[in-house]
This record gives sequence, C-alpha cells and structure tokens, in this order.
Amino acid sequence: MALIVHKYGGTSMGSTERIRNVAKRVAKWARAGHQMVVVPSAMSGETNRLLSLAKELAPGRTSDDYNRELDMLASTGEQASSALLAIALQAEGMPSVSYAGWQVSVRTDSSFTKARIESIEDERVRADLEAGKVVVITGFQGVDDAGNITTLGRGGSDTSAVAIAAAMKAHECLIYTDVDGVYTTDPRVEPDARRLHTVSFEEMLEMASLGSKVLQIRSVEFAGKYKVPLRVLSSFTPWDIDINEEAKSGTLITFEEDENMEQAVVSGIAFNRDEAKVSVLGVPDTPGIAYHILGAVADANIEVDVIIQNLSKGGKTDFSFTVHRNDFAKCIDLLKEKVLPKLGAAEVVGDAKICKVSIVGIGMRSHVGVASKMFRVLSEEGINIQMISTSEIKTSVVIDEKYMELAVRALHKAFDLDQPPA
Amino acid sequence: MALIVHKYGGTSMGSTERIRNVAKRVAKWARAGHQMVVVPSAMSGETNRLLSLAKELAPGRTSDDYNRELDMLASTGEQASSALLAIALQAEGMPSVSYAGWQVSVRTDSSFTKARIESIEDERVRADLEAGKVVVITGFQGVDDAGNITTLGRGGSDTSAVAIAAAMKAHECLIYTDVDGVYTTDPRVEPDARRLHTVSFEEMLEMASLGSKVLQIRSVEFAGKYKVPLRVLSSFTPWDIDINEEAKSGTLITFEEDENMEQAVVSGIAFNRDEAKVSVLGVPDTPGIAYHILGAVADANIEVDVIIQNLSKGGKTDFSFTVHRNDFAKCIDLLKEKVLPKLGAAEVVGDAKICKVSIVGIGMRSHVGVASKMFRVLSEEGINIQMISTSEIKTSVVIDEKYMELAVRALHKAFDLDQPPA
Repeated sequence: MALIVHKYGGTSMGSTERIRNVAKRVAKWARAGHQMVVVPSAMSGETNRLLSLAKELAPGRTSDDYNRELDMLASTGEQASSALLAIALQAEGMPSVSYAGWQVSVRTDSSFTKARIESIEDERVRADLEAGKVVVITGFQGVDDAGNITTLGRGGSDTSAVAIAAAMKAHECLIYTDVDGVYTTDPRVEPDARRLHTVSFEEMLEMASLGSKVLQIRSVEFAGKYKVPLRVLSSFTPWDIDINEEAKSGTLITFEEDENMEQAVVSGIAFNRDEAKVSVLGVPDTPGIAYHILGAVADANIEVDVIIQNLSKGGKTDFSFTVHRNDFAKCIDLLKEKVLPKLGAAEVVGDAKICKVSIVGIGMRSHVGVASKMFRVLSEEGINIQMISTSEIKTSVVIDEKYMELAVRALHKAFDLDQPPA
Repeated sequence: MALIVHKYGGTSMGSTERIRNVAKRVAKWARAGHQMVVVPSAMSGETNRLLSLAKELAPGRTSDDYNRELDMLASTGEQASSALLAIALQAEGMPSVSYAGWQVSVRTDSSFTKARIESIEDERVRADLEAGKVVVITGFQGVDDAGNITTLGRGGSDTSAVAIAAAMKAHECLIYTDVDGVYTTDPRVEPDARRLHTVSFEEMLEMASLGSKVLQIRSVEFAGKYKVPLRVLSSFTPWDIDINEEAKSGTLITFEEDENMEQAVVSGIAFNRDEAKVSVLGVPDTPGIAYHILGAVADANIEVDVIIQNLSKGGKTDFSFTVHRNDFAKCIDLLKEKVLPKLGAAEVVGDAKICKVSIVGIGMRSHVGVASKMFRVLSEEGINIQMISTSEIKTSVVIDEKYMELAVRALHKAFDLDQPPA
C-alpha cells in the first residue's frame, strides 16, 4: 500500500514479448495495492539506431543547435516504449497512461545531451494514481525553460526514475536490470563473488565511479541527496514470482546505517581498466607545477583521475596522473608539445597497460589498518603498486594491467568477501 | 522573398540519402531569399512499424485511453524525421531548428487518432525565421488543451502543412510527393491523361473525395477555407533544378477563378471501385422509408454514398444505395435480419462488382448539357448506367465494374481532356 517506482532498462523492454512481461509484473504490483509509477528506457538498440541516422546525415557537430536536434531525435525512443508499455498494461486490464518528460514537467537545464533535472511537477501524476491508473513516465528526457526537449545522457533513465521517486516521495525505487544485484566484485573475474543484500549509497557511489556499471553514477548521487531507497534487481525472474520474495530480492542501496546493514569493513572490490598513466619526469620542484601541467590538460577537456607528485630529489620531481585511455595519445602529445618546453621538464612517459583496483567500504572509516592490509596482500602476491589514492571509504591502487584478476581475487579472499556476513 | 511552406511525404523522407536531398532542395529555396517552413512526414514504413508493435501488444482497443497511447506512439515517427531533417539542413550549412506540434502549439481537439487542428501559435516560428533559420515542424500531430499529444489521422501531414501555411499567411504551400501533379485522370487507366497546371480547390475537393489520392481531402478543405494557394509537385526531380522552373511545376490548386485558369468545362475524370451497391426491393412507398432503411445502416456505423429511390409502382418502390465494399456483407446481413421483417419489403439484393465514374469541373456550373453528353457517350459505348448522382460541379454514375476503363477513356476523349487547353 505504498507508492513504488519501477524502472526497466532497454534489455527488459527489448521486444513486445518482454514489454508484455514488464506489464504483467507491474500489474501484479498494482493489484497488490501499490500505487505504481513506471519509467522505461527505449527498446534496446533503438537509441543507437536513431543516433546512427543522425551520424549518416552529419558526421559531427554541425552547429550550436546540433545537440538540441539530437535530443529531439533520441527522446522519441523512450516516448515510443512508454506508450507501448501503457498499451500492454491496458491489455492486461490495468488502466494506464503514459507521459513524455515535458508533459509532467520534468524540468532540466539546457545542457542538451547531458541535461540535469531541476524539478518535477507531480500533480498530474498524483491525480492519475488516485484514479487507479498506472502512470508510465518516459525516462532519459526532460524539458528546459524554453520548452526544448533535453536528454540526460546515456543511462539517464536511472536518474529519471530516482528523480521521480524523490519528487513523489516514493517508498522505494526499484531498478530492474539484466543483473540480479550488486556484487562484492565482478563474478566474471571472481566466481566466488557474492551478491550484497544491502550496500550504503556512499559505497555504491564509489563503486559506480570506480567502474561497476550496474547503475549510472548520477542516479546514485541523486538517491543519496534525496534519500531515495533504491533497489537493483533482475527483470529476468518470472513475472509471477511471489511479490514478497521479489520485494526482498536484489540489492538495496540505503542511506541509513541501520542495524540490518552488513557490518563488513570492506564491502566490495571495484576495478577499472579504462585508464592510462602519464608521467612528467624531471620537473623543477617549484610552486605552481601541478597547475601548469593539469591546467593545460583540463583546457584540452581531458579528465584526470588519480594524481601523485613524488618526493623531490635535487630540486626536481616527477609528476604522474591517470587519464581515460581514449585521451591517452592526445594527452602525451599535448604535454610534449606545449608543457615540456615551458616547464623545462626532462621527459614525458606513459603507460596504457595499467589498471586501477579499489577496496570500498564504509567500515574503513572506523577501522584502522585496512589500507595497509591491502598493500600487504598485493605485496605477498608480488604485485608492484604504481600509484595510490585514498578517500574516506575507499583505497585505490594503480597496478600493471596483467595482475588485475590476481589482485581482485586475492583481495576478495583476504577481506572475507566470499563468506556470508556474520 | 516570401514565406513558403514545403511539405514532404514519407517516401521523400524514406532514407538518409533522400532526407539529404530534401535538405539540399530546401536550402536552395532559403538561399534564394525565402523564409522557409518545412513539414515532413515520418520516414516511410515507420508509422506502420510503430503501430504493428502496438497491435502485437493489444490486438484491439483496450480501454478509453488506448487511442491516446496510439497517438503518443505514432507521433514519434514525425518527431524523429523532423530532427533528422534539421540536422541535415545544418550539415548543409543552413541554420535550422525542429519543433514537435506541442512546441509551437498546434492546438487540436481531443479526438485521438483523428484530431482536428483548432489553432497554431506562430510567434516562436516567426522569431526563428527572422533570425534566418529554416523551421521544421512535425506534421500529423498536435496537442490538446489538456497537454495530450494528438494525431490527425493518416495523411495528416498534408493538413498540418496547409494549416501552418494558413496560420503564417504563407505565400504558397508546396506539397512534394511521389507524383508530379494532379492529372485529368489516372494515367494508369488512360495513358493520354494530362497534368493540369491549375485546378480549382472545389474541383480538387471533388476529385479527392471521389478517389484521387494525391492529397488528403481535409487538407484541401482547409486550403479552401483559408484560401491557401497549394501546389502539388514531385520530390523526385533533381534537387538542383532551376528554382523558377520548380516554382511553376506540378499543379497549382487555386481558390480564385482568375484569367489564367484553364477554361475547360470538365477538368478531370475520377473513379472509384471501393463501393458496392445494395438494393431493397418491393418496399411499401410510405413516408419514412428512407429513414427506416438508412437509419439502421447509420446506427451500424456504415457510411452511405450514392442514394436513389425508384418511381413507385403499385404502391411499392425499390431503394438503392452504395456503401464501402468492406461494409457490404455486414450491410446486407443487417438489412435482411432487422429491416426487411419490419418494413415488409420483398427482398434485399446487392452487387459488389460496380464502380463509380465521375466527371468534375467548375465549368459545369455555367454550361448546360454536360451531364447529358456524359450519358450519351456511355450509351454509345453500350454501358448501362445503374445509378446517377449529381452536384454543382460533378456528375457521377454507377456502372458495372468491368466497363470502368472503357468509360474513363471514352469520357476523357469526349471532353477533350487529352488536348492541351486553348
């Protein structure tokens, strides 16, 4: 007897057969007495199909209005799948109505293709819910103050669902996807990885930002900001499984550190092989060095992740950081051509064959020695640590890419993640 | 140096290659100094694709909200093609912006799937035109007072274009299609059929209603009501043909009987084999007969076209009318079961193998003997006339279907339609 938001990804909406299953599942929840709001993605492949048509017509940005038109185009995918879901619900005997983002005023800023939600008006939706209808709201899109359609960027439907759940003060936001929850690490790397029943939103935020691709990171930020209980669960269970069992399945992302939470020090091992390391060697150790190097990099629109500056030796130091692998070559060229001559540094070197492995857990706040245990485990496996970065609830290391699986498995075992919580 | 509306059908928008050609053609017009508004249909096949997905999910009407959802769904086709055209225009170096129906307030009533346009706000469009942009507006769709998306029914993009041209007081509305104009009759039946340079909107209205499928009939009504000069022309001429030549090509549908108009008595021969004839024989000739028969037919949602009641003989008469062939069997059953017993009529007979052939021309207003010439020509060919129906500017006859081509060709020749106008 609560207001529940369901979100279904593109794979879950991938065919009329699957849409029918989504409708049956949602109808089951509605018949159990819940007020239901559903946020579907476009049918899988549809957004790519539309954007490839645009690419055929214009290989790149054509004008200031280009991104506005891309959003006009891409937003049609979610509008179509939302209408189809409403029709499927009606066919199941469940009254339903679908709305595009602009129709329920999902207001965003005007950053086309990567807009941010500012507000949602819920009056119309509440009236429909009171009238006993399931309300389907397009994900991924909104409308700016000038009445232009905007989209939130890839994975934006997660963010839409959480924002709607926040605006409606929903009891819970259920994100149905093609995995059955959040794991201690990727089961493809560590077969003993275990599904977490709960995870704190701060841990989830770190894991998402560290490459766990279960949820879009902005949706997690949003959930944390507005304290929306978020559950990740599988859309591939039979639609008619017991609703109480389904309501407890998957992984609950909570913002309260209540007694039911698993008390492990480390909750998961995240990893990421999308980065590359860049080092500027023999830099004169004077104030402003970091700014001179990273300012030039930022000006070229290259994002930097881990940064370290070595101890100075003889007035010279080495400066290293990681960038996305796609930006690696561009970054090296930039430093050689523009930064090296100005700084009088000796050399720029890089390594694309690195990876970042991180331990994440809110227990690290209150437990000492967690990072040093990580370093010991890696050392025992003969793995050399190239860079270290820490935050309150995570410790990341950059290591040679070839040791990635070894490091993940060793850390997973050392922190007892293969064991069920006490 | 005028405001021009172009409308492109689904075939003209059928691929990225064709969309690029449309963009080049529109850019040519804009560079010649015209303010351009373009109304595209969905890419050919797209609307059918979307509606067949809906049909898979719900074989028929599911609820009162079903048609609303169909409109949410179907309207995405035009939104996508409009955005793609704007992108193609930008790629041609032509500033462009696209709008969905609701964004420029194409207001309609709430008759989902067959809505009627009530008003259009043109402020936003005028501002863009003043700023030198080509404005692309989705066809086929609008928005009702409650903010629901509506569609105008099949072929509705023609009506959108004419309505926009009327609201903007455009100099001319050019309907680009896969034929190069309006012909004296269907060239597949009469190879000597000739393209008309001009035709009056009243003649066009009769031809459209009589089965010439060049333009949607509501768009012609709209053009007549708001006196929008309308031109039908081919989108398959090379995009770079001389603009002055292009501006005079096709067929101009005018509302003024000016001196340039062709002065033929008959402008065209229309025909239609979608109808079937139903006769109720031996009906007592008392008041209210027509109401008793046709009231029952109307109650069953069957549309009736030509109606005749024979002379009474011995207090009994025969009553005949035509219906669409799809409704033929249903109509016969209905009359036998419900009407015959009540009326005490003798018999219901029907004939699906009929056709309707019509001569159309505003010259018929001022020329006598046109109909009798038609009857003479048919008689000379040995064609028996089963029913006759006349209006101010057309005469229709119902004849045996097998004589259709013969009748069309004989009339085409007899009224000199194969000869260029004097």
